[in-house]
Amino acid sequence: MKPGLEESALLTALMAEYAMAIDDNRLEDWVELFDEACEYKVVTRENVEQGLPNVLMWCDNKNMLRDRVESYREVNLYNLHYDRHVLGPLRFLAKEGSTCTFEASYSLFQTELEGASRLFSVGKYRIEALIENGAARLKSVTVIADTGLVPSLLATPI
Amino acid sequence: MKPGLEESALLTALMAEYAMAIDDNRLEDWVELFDEACEYKVVTRENVEQGLPNVLMWCDNKNMLRDRVESYREVNLYNLHYDRHVLGPLRFLAKEGSTCTFEASYSLFQTELEGASRLFSVGKYRIEALIENGAARLKSVTVIADTGLVPSLLATPI
Amino acid sequence: MKPGLEESALLTALMAEYAMAIDDNRLEDWVELFDEACEYKVVTRENVEQGLPNVLMWCDNKNMLRDRVESYREVNLYNLHYDRHVLGPLRFLAKEGSTCTFEASYSLFQTELEGASRLFSVGKYRIEALIENGAARLKSVTVIADTGLVPSLLATPI
Repeated sequence: MKPGLEESALLTALMAEYAMAIDDNRLEDWVELFDEACEYKVVTRENVEQGLPNVLMWCDNKNMLRDRVESYREVNLYNLHYDRHVLGPLRFLAKEGSTCTFEASYSLFQTELEGASRLFSVGKYRIEALIENGAARLKSVTVIADTGLVPSLLATPI
Repeated sequence: MKPGLEESALLTALMAEYAMAIDDNRLEDWVELFDEACEYKVVTRENVEQGLPNVLMWCDNKNMLRDRVESYREVNLYNLHYDRHVLGPLRFLAKEGSTCTFEASYSLFQTELEGASRLFSVGKYRIEALIENGAARLKSVTVIADTGLVPSLLATPI
Repeated sequence: MKPGLEESALLTALMAEYAMAIDDNRLEDWVELFDEACEYKVVTRENVEQGLPNVLMWCDNKNMLRDRVESYREVNLYNLHYDRHVLGPLRFLAKEGSTCTFEASYSLFQTELEGASRLFSVGKYRIEALIENGAARLKSVTVIADTGLVPSLLATPI
């Protein structure tokens, strides 16, 4: 079963807010898009295809996301770069009960404070979201990055 | 209040046409997407965040947009590059009366006539649009560019 | 006449699957999005604007697409790069009977197996799709690439 028009619009809006919250440096708003029982992880496509267990970032509940954002705020008094996500259309995979599974491709650009922009990462999201009472929230977000990423570069989420 | 499904589709179509009109070099069609009483401006994110008043391009009514496109046509007998916008999904902020406010991220690529493409600018649009009689038109477009931009490079709108 | 909300959603989903099928290296699934009587071609914008007949890739029925994917599978035992498409919103042009015509801009990135990503091509699709019995399939796909492309680089479709 696939989500209907209203649900598709809710999920597209959820992802628009996901991307813009990170890009606006509203990371606390980004955390609030998740359910308390949630998972967020970043893996590389190479590791997925080779069956390797390496994970570049992994939070398995909302408090870990809160902690991560809080640490980031303490360490980074100033914004060191700007992020900019451009997401493609959602590919809906399934709807089971109130849970929808979908994917979306992303391009992520970073701009240094001097003003130069560059491609930072491309890949896709694989997402499980809950829709209840006309609102959607994130249960599971897996970022599968085509681009090889060094964990230390991941100051902000993707 | 947020726009409904029909309105969201109208606004997404408006932005698809906005981007494609520029990329197709149909700048006169691009102007026609605006209301007579309109505003179009390009600013950098750095200036916005520092509260600086610098504006890279500013037209505060439709005739100024018409003039600008006309001048461009006189100066540029040949197309010097191709533009290509790829926009992300719309983030709807509010609907008050017939006015909808939303944002969308963009990536803008330029291709030289020799065929090489490069990233030219990333950032977001902040937009106010009017919906009347089943049609949408632009009241206010603010381009907030993450990328530092030299005004002289802005031959075509973003 | 323009497509309605349900049809627009079907066509957006078709393009999301189009892009993800290529990027996931599910080229056989990509072929299945086409009608038996179909056309797929890749041209450069420069050639289109100069009225030149050069075509970089051309298949004028589904069996040619099948053959092409089969040959690709025989030659490429290993995946030599990852593709990643990020598509913009659809610009709907017309609906005549069960045929919808629309355009969409694309950015296409490639990632080498060592993990470095780069911009490979930008441009737009011009598409005719059939909607019958609640399902959409591709009748005609023309890729108009802004980026100059060498035919030998086109191992996978765009």
